[in-house]
Amino acid sequence: MDDASFPITNRNRVRRKPDRGRFDRQTVYDILDAAMVAHIAYVIDGQPYCTPTGFWREDDKLYWHGSSASRMIRSQSAGVPVCVTATHLDAIVLARSGFHHSVNYRSVMAFGTARLVTDPDEKTRALDGFVDRFFPGRSKEIRPATAQETKATSFVVMPIDEASGKIRSTHVMDDEEDYALPVWTARIPVRQVLGEPEPCPRQLPGLDIPDGLKGYRAGRALDEALLEAYHMTYPD
Amino acid sequence: MDDASFPITNRNRVRRKPDRGRFDRQTVYDILDAAMVAHIAYVIDGQPYCTPTGFWREDDKLYWHGSSASRMIRSQSAGVPVCVTATHLDAIVLARSGFHHSVNYRSVMAFGTARLVTDPDEKTRALDGFVDRFFPGRSKEIRPATAQETKATSFVVMPIDEASGKIRSTHVMDDEEDYALPVWTARIPVRQVLGEPEPCPRQLPGLDIPDGLKGYRAGRALDEALLEAYHMTYPD
Repeated sequence: MDDASFPITNRNRVRRKPDRGRFDRQTVYDILDAAMVAHIAYVIDGQPYCTPTGFWREDDKLYWHGSSASRMIRSQSAGVPVCVTATHLDAIVLARSGFHHSVNYRSVMAFGTARLVTDPDEKTRALDGFVDRFFPGRSKEIRPATAQETKATSFVVMPIDEASGKIRSTHVMDDEEDYALPVWTARIPVRQVLGEPEPCPRQLPGLDIPDGLKGYRAGRALDEALLEAYHMTYPD
Repeated sequence: MDDASFPITNRNRVRRKPDRGRFDRQTVYDILDAAMVAHIAYVIDGQPYCTPTGFWREDDKLYWHGSSASRMIRSQSAGVPVCVTATHLDAIVLARSGFHHSVNYRSVMAFGTARLVTDPDEKTRALDGFVDRFFPGRSKEIRPATAQETKATSFVVMPIDEASGKIRSTHVMDDEEDYALPVWTARIPVRQVLGEPEPCPRQLPGLDIPDGLKGYRAGRALDEALLEAYHMTYPD
């Protein structure tokens, strides 16, 4: 087993289009760290649920949060198997046959056992981490969490047991004989971009955008801003 | 029970932030029809999986596809419970406390039993539908599917038993006493936008973008283009 890569098991093997599979940690981490929202699959009484959730990574652990009251947290507090998936849509690919229509994307499926964060120190770190991971330094700039808020907030942690990345980044790929067909084809790029910040109407006058947020400038790709913010907060 | 709305059950009730819940079919359908990729949660031997997949809606049914060989399709062909979730990230919301940091979003969780499409007519319709739903009229412009391709393609259909939408679309919402704090706050819009189409390098000369694809113009929001394409193909 190569420490720089996740082991390939029955659970994380890329069966469909295996040439798109990526198992090296850096590639998997970059896909995760460029995302703000993941989809989390979990099971209650045999019924699967898929919940979109803000999340972040610390070393080989994923964290997310929710109200102490939420069904997801309650069901997961005992430590339950989950699958966390982060996906970036990068392009629409229009080919000369329906079969070769596709999209370019980067995705990660991460597997592990999720449990509620109960250690008070780990919870305090998570409260700040959830803010600072996205907005470097911001936990020091805002009003600290009250005891009531801390109580009402739960965090879930999932050490990544296995993960796989999957990437399609090529152009139109048609069957050789189809290139002669008079069909308009293209790869249409898709980007998630930031708009101009809209200050809160009740914002006090004279406040400038903090340094830690300057990466979130209008027109920039969100995934780039998120990855940059991640490395500001976790320099190694 | 109101036919214009999904019934609220133990499964689709919005427990966390119930004021954000939406159960009317039109709102739920608009969120689904503005998306190209959903995340599908399913269970194999107690292990949840969350797979990003291209999907579309026809009436009250969701369709998606995959290779006949894929684990997801094999596990679902018998008819298994799934949860299909579509999510649009609309803004990042920076507040004066960590507790009120948020994102604006539109999401739908749809529940039902998925089964493999085995009826040949339904499968033929799905082959065209998957192309035309996104790219109106395109199934008539491309090379038709071969018998081999048809055989290698599987579709899954899931009648929506229950669904719930969830929307946050407000501005910064802080505790009243916190508005006096000197903290920079903002709502930063996020949009998934289309770039300039990059034609296939081997494209024949003299081909123009077909009418059905003209909605996919550079700079446009993908969700708008997808919703417009949907209504071109399904006018009612």
